[in-house]
Amino acid sequence: MTIPLRVAMIGHGFMGAAHSVGWRQAPAAFDLPLAPSMAVLVGRDADKTAAAARRWGWDETSTDWRAVIARDDIDVVDIVTPGDSHAEIAIAALAAGKHVLCEKPLANSVEEAEAMEQAAQDAAAHGIRAMVGFTYRRVPAVTLMRDMISAGRIGTIRQVRASYRQDWLADPESPMTWRLDKNRAGSGALGDIGAHIVDMTQFVTGHALTEVSGVMETLVEERPVLDEAVGLGGTAGTERGAVTVDDVALFTGRLESGTLATFEATRFATGRKNALDIEISGDAGALHWNLEDMNALEFYDATRPAGEQGFTRILVTEPEHPYLSGWWPTGHMLGYEHGFSHQVKDLTEAIAAGADPQPTFADGLRVQRVLDAVERSAHSGSAWTGV
Amino acid sequence: MTIPLRVAMIGHGFMGAAHSVGWRQAPAAFDLPLAPSMAVLVGRDADKTAAAARRWGWDETSTDWRAVIARDDIDVVDIVTPGDSHAEIAIAALAAGKHVLCEKPLANSVEEAEAMEQAAQDAAAHGIRAMVGFTYRRVPAVTLMRDMISAGRIGTIRQVRASYRQDWLADPESPMTWRLDKNRAGSGALGDIGAHIVDMTQFVTGHALTEVSGVMETLVEERPVLDEAVGLGGTAGTERGAVTVDDVALFTGRLESGTLATFEATRFATGRKNALDIEISGDAGALHWNLEDMNALEFYDATRPAGEQGFTRILVTEPEHPYLSGWWPTGHMLGYEHGFSHQVKDLTEAIAAGADPQPTFADGLRVQRVLDAVERSAHSGSAWTGV
Amino acid sequence: MTIPLRVAMIGHGFMGAAHSVGWRQAPAAFDLPLAPSMAVLVGRDADKTAAAARRWGWDETSTDWRAVIARDDIDVVDIVTPGDSHAEIAIAALAAGKHVLCEKPLANSVEEAEAMEQAAQDAAAHGIRAMVGFTYRRVPAVTLMRDMISAGRIGTIRQVRASYRQDWLADPESPMTWRLDKNRAGSGALGDIGAHIVDMTQFVTGHALTEVSGVMETLVEERPVLDEAVGLGGTAGTERGAVTVDDVALFTGRLESGTLATFEATRFATGRKNALDIEISGDAGALHWNLEDMNALEFYDATRPAGEQGFTRILVTEPEHPYLSGWWPTGHMLGYEHGFSHQVKDLTEAIAAGADPQPTFADGLRVQRVLDAVERSAHSGSAWTGV
Amino acid sequence: MTIPLRVAMIGHGFMGAAHSVGWRQAPAAFDLPLAPSMAVLVGRDADKTAAAARRWGWDETSTDWRAVIARDDIDVVDIVTPGDSHAEIAIAALAAGKHVLCEKPLANSVEEAEAMEQAAQDAAAHGIRAMVGFTYRRVPAVTLMRDMISAGRIGTIRQVRASYRQDWLADPESPMTWRLDKNRAGSGALGDIGAHIVDMTQFVTGHALTEVSGVMETLVEERPVLDEAVGLGGTAGTERGAVTVDDVALFTGRLESGTLATFEATRFATGRKNALDIEISGDAGALHWNLEDMNALEFYDATRPAGEQGFTRILVTEPEHPYLSGWWPTGHMLGYEHGFSHQVKDLTEAIAAGADPQPTFADGLRVQRVLDAVERSAHSGSAWTGV
Repeated sequence: MTIPLRVAMIGHGFMGAAHSVGWRQAPAAFDLPLAPSMAVLVGRDADKTAAAARRWGWDETSTDWRAVIARDDIDVVDIVTPGDSHAEIAIAALAAGKHVLCEKPLANSVEEAEAMEQAAQDAAAHGIRAMVGFTYRRVPAVTLMRDMISAGRIGTIRQVRASYRQDWLADPESPMTWRLDKNRAGSGALGDIGAHIVDMTQFVTGHALTEVSGVMETLVEERPVLDEAVGLGGTAGTERGAVTVDDVALFTGRLESGTLATFEATRFATGRKNALDIEISGDAGALHWNLEDMNALEFYDATRPAGEQGFTRILVTEPEHPYLSGWWPTGHMLGYEHGFSHQVKDLTEAIAAGADPQPTFADGLRVQRVLDAVERSAHSGSAWTGV
Repeated sequence: MTIPLRVAMIGHGFMGAAHSVGWRQAPAAFDLPLAPSMAVLVGRDADKTAAAARRWGWDETSTDWRAVIARDDIDVVDIVTPGDSHAEIAIAALAAGKHVLCEKPLANSVEEAEAMEQAAQDAAAHGIRAMVGFTYRRVPAVTLMRDMISAGRIGTIRQVRASYRQDWLADPESPMTWRLDKNRAGSGALGDIGAHIVDMTQFVTGHALTEVSGVMETLVEERPVLDEAVGLGGTAGTERGAVTVDDVALFTGRLESGTLATFEATRFATGRKNALDIEISGDAGALHWNLEDMNALEFYDATRPAGEQGFTRILVTEPEHPYLSGWWPTGHMLGYEHGFSHQVKDLTEAIAAGADPQPTFADGLRVQRVLDAVERSAHSGSAWTGV
Repeated sequence: MTIPLRVAMIGHGFMGAAHSVGWRQAPAAFDLPLAPSMAVLVGRDADKTAAAARRWGWDETSTDWRAVIARDDIDVVDIVTPGDSHAEIAIAALAAGKHVLCEKPLANSVEEAEAMEQAAQDAAAHGIRAMVGFTYRRVPAVTLMRDMISAGRIGTIRQVRASYRQDWLADPESPMTWRLDKNRAGSGALGDIGAHIVDMTQFVTGHALTEVSGVMETLVEERPVLDEAVGLGGTAGTERGAVTVDDVALFTGRLESGTLATFEATRFATGRKNALDIEISGDAGALHWNLEDMNALEFYDATRPAGEQGFTRILVTEPEHPYLSGWWPTGHMLGYEHGFSHQVKDLTEAIAAGADPQPTFADGLRVQRVLDAVERSAHSGSAWTGV
Repeated sequence: MTIPLRVAMIGHGFMGAAHSVGWRQAPAAFDLPLAPSMAVLVGRDADKTAAAARRWGWDETSTDWRAVIARDDIDVVDIVTPGDSHAEIAIAALAAGKHVLCEKPLANSVEEAEAMEQAAQDAAAHGIRAMVGFTYRRVPAVTLMRDMISAGRIGTIRQVRASYRQDWLADPESPMTWRLDKNRAGSGALGDIGAHIVDMTQFVTGHALTEVSGVMETLVEERPVLDEAVGLGGTAGTERGAVTVDDVALFTGRLESGTLATFEATRFATGRKNALDIEISGDAGALHWNLEDMNALEFYDATRPAGEQGFTRILVTEPEHPYLSGWWPTGHMLGYEHGFSHQVKDLTEAIAAGADPQPTFADGLRVQRVLDAVERSAHSGSAWTGV
């Protein structure tokens, strides 16, 4: 752990806090081949950036991301800004020879994502790595789900059912944020949470989605504007801003294997706080996982004796389970942010090994294309639309 | 309970057993205004009909349903045959002045259902009643869900999510039955189990579906033919018969209120035995129910103090709850067949009161029209299709 | 099913309703070797008895149980009165050559239970059968639990944990009933619900309890007296009656195998309606069951591969499962009263086969002795007390 | 956060890793009044200590705890060694004017704990603080449980039911560790996990236990000795060492309010990995929590309308909930180690405020006295024994 890996992180919102935990915790939990250091935090507002750096443990700060990626003493650029700036920063950082970790979704449009994926390919030729941050892949139960599927434990996949339901917009007086502005966020429930279930489906099944049929809807079209959101379509006080993204996205997809899959992304599921739920049904069994019970994986083994079959609730906290070597004894729960440490582990190991970290920018582009196809289908009366 | 109500039941399959429990148990559980008697059981095979009658407690048997509905001493005709004979029998029985209880789905086509609904209207003018058997409406937790919604406990409805998942066809060697033959059953998962979630959605929300977009699929197209299934497209032994109905039906619908609703009906959800699941999200709360935990209703009350909100698991076994007066002390569970006793209670009370029992044939027709629209949408590339 | 079995039932409270369901439903659900008929209902109040008989379907009524057991045309006497009359009626009925089904607990004291057990032994010599009604043994999931334990599926038993928690006395204004009067009920939570977990433990493990250490407590010592409860230690209106039984009984026991077992019986577990919960831990696995989720049995198989272990929720509704042949397709739930049909099935088959039905009066006596030992231990400062 | 708080931690086992997370994460999550720094890690083996320090981020190491507590530049001594050394180190550190955080149980005997509590009192007079590490108090759901009880949300407490069940000794070939050696660990299941449920009961109810009746048992009396465990009563290889502590401890207690409470601590509950479960029943409601679902608190409110009562599953991830201000948006789960950050927060705030941090050494002594009374009761045939 003696070769240093100097990281600059651009952005310091909620995702910046989460990524910081990853950089801080991973070296204490795992035997990493490189020693990450939290070198520079970059933000637009010098004071806020300094406060965040102090709290999270970044050594330096900057307000000029271009200057930072030009520095020789930075090895990794970690991008946690809103989606509209991902492409510009990532492409520049890769061109400057920095490994890039980019928070999901990869970009706000397919065009941007394609340019990023091309940049990643070009950089790979020079040993530079690019990774997109679908961290839910790294919840141990989700990795285990993927492993069991690829080991054939549920046989041939017959159906996929995935949903991600939250309720933070159910209150019509919940205020505007950049996440409700199409210019900043690209899309709403679809891109923010729908992207997770698209990526997870493609990850655990190993199959890409090839066509979709969907509908998107904005249930509350105007919301109050708070001071901090001025500029998002209104002014503070009694003004209301226009919600320009979807609150709900419902779609059906077909995997390259021919299998049908259903998807629901909504911010109006009253009482559901963070309910990412996925079930994969095969002809030899089924697997089910829910983020609100994130340490458990439910496995139905249709090859067990008749009369003893049922869903088995595997508590994914055993030494045999993915990523668990770094943590606590059996039965001690992991939480949301552990995925960010696992992300650092995987990225660090890939860099050291000269391999592409998963998920790649190509994976991110694949998700982007699905989201785009859903939007196109929604705009053409739910017609089936190729990805 | 001294005025008798003489019942003739036509058919004696699984549904005949269930309806018999209703006729047998309801008078012991509830103070009924009329005294049902199990007068005649009708079937095509005299021996099998006699054996069923002996076991279930029917006084007489017949192989001629036309003769039975012509008898003066029969008050109610209960139809539990496959869907292809519902229309003929029900229309004849109503014309003969008999009250009719017809198992769901009302018919195999919209045309039949329309004729039945017209016959019910004509009969109602003479005080003759017609009811369709969506018994899941009468699970106490489901009736309570409807009552709470109509009392405004979850406010304005924002989303509906309904699914009915089973796995009895997941095994490709599961044999042919009449339920997989389009001529007999009309449709597959859609009409058999999808019909339940369509009716339940319309029942608990009080809103009709106005348009749908859907896809249907047959995952296993040929199945082994057993002796008892000869005539269903093959001969016994090594022969295989063609499955001519859908195994999976996925659709999105819009209620007359404009609300989006998702539906999934499948017989390929490995490990899910009888998983009818419905969740209604409103701006003041949400309600969730699952048939595999049928005595519980989950209620999220968004008007409770912040920090104390959550889904409350109401065990629907209290004296205050619908239908519970007839049963056991608090905490003693009801099962699948109690709905059939509740059906008898409601039908008997409606006849005595000179009122239309719920659900009416018009309700059954409304479901049929939705199923038909789903089929039409599926055949036109999931285009949105009016009901 | 042509040989009749004529039944007289003595008592018509809540348990009378439940036993009536058993006599009415079992012949429709199962191929019984004898044909039970609901011949005579016996009660002290002629009008109430007649009303109950009419509702439940008993052919005749009587207010004189001695006269009824003297009749030649009665084959079975079913006793559902409070515990203080069990011994007298059962002993007389056995002496009169009637098979006896006696609701639990067998008696209010060990002395009575011993006399009953002796009477049952004497009667057995003449082909007369006696059975005590621990119906929870006959919930399919509980029978399956016993079967799996005796088949060695969880190995050697290491610990037992059983509780039965209700909350109907948590409200201090909940009124007096005969169940709170020691003269009528014998004991409180201990005998009413504690008896169930003692019997179930001995049933599923196959091991008898040999010694116990316990404590019993009455949390509310006086309760309001309602009109119908006059005579229970007070007069109606403002009067309060003395609760002379335990509200809570907590005890630890040792099985003949040496294994420790914990027991809790309480009527003060706020929010728990009928929470009979039992877990048996062995060195090769564990089994867990809860009455509020009565169709499921949870099985932990410690011989499964590391990383795939967990509790499997077996839905006990498959054709392979005990008693399920008589009921519905997979996934259709059974309720509280199905155990009473299973009881009739088992009793009828035992009588026809000339065998002793399970559980015997000896099993009932064994439970009574445990309850008595708990009371003695509680009165001697929780000292370990032999059964 | 500019005044530093220099910490020396003594010990570097599993608990050392967990405490290190707390020291590392708390300053990033919360606005602390003092700035903890991870100054010195102390262990007996210089190499192992250095490796641990490097991994966890401690600045220096030492093999001489006495030298470290004599240093002027150390403010806090954090003790995570086995229980047999707690007293000596803590008393010396307090005498040297260092604030002390001591992992639970406070000591291996009441005598030691009394001396420690006296030392804490003496130190408090000089502004020196002492805290014992019952971190489960600081799971947000547990703190919320305490808050709701003290706010009267469940009324008067009627019963307490607490258990802590694990299965890591269910396998008889699971090897010897210092935790199974009475000289090192003091006791087995009782002191290791039973201590948690005793403290939690006293914490959430606000009532101390005054007397107990219990039984303790060692189910497997000899276990294989691994190399690293040599010296624990055997030699490596084929040798087996004697287990000198309890595997199971079962006891009933009485709170100073008179309320009965049941406790079970076991390492033989096959399939239960870390099942700390507590339920408090009051006359106005109940609260239930289980460590294996640690982010949820179940609340039964008996004052809700009849027919709407049930256990509400509160997901304790809202901004209103204890400690949540430092973490993620609603619905994002916390894990095991977050309690250690909360511990650092509370200790730091107490030191800055000149107040005693909770739980105090007096709380730790109170637990020790209960454990001692359980042992004495177990040795006298479960006789009720004063604390």
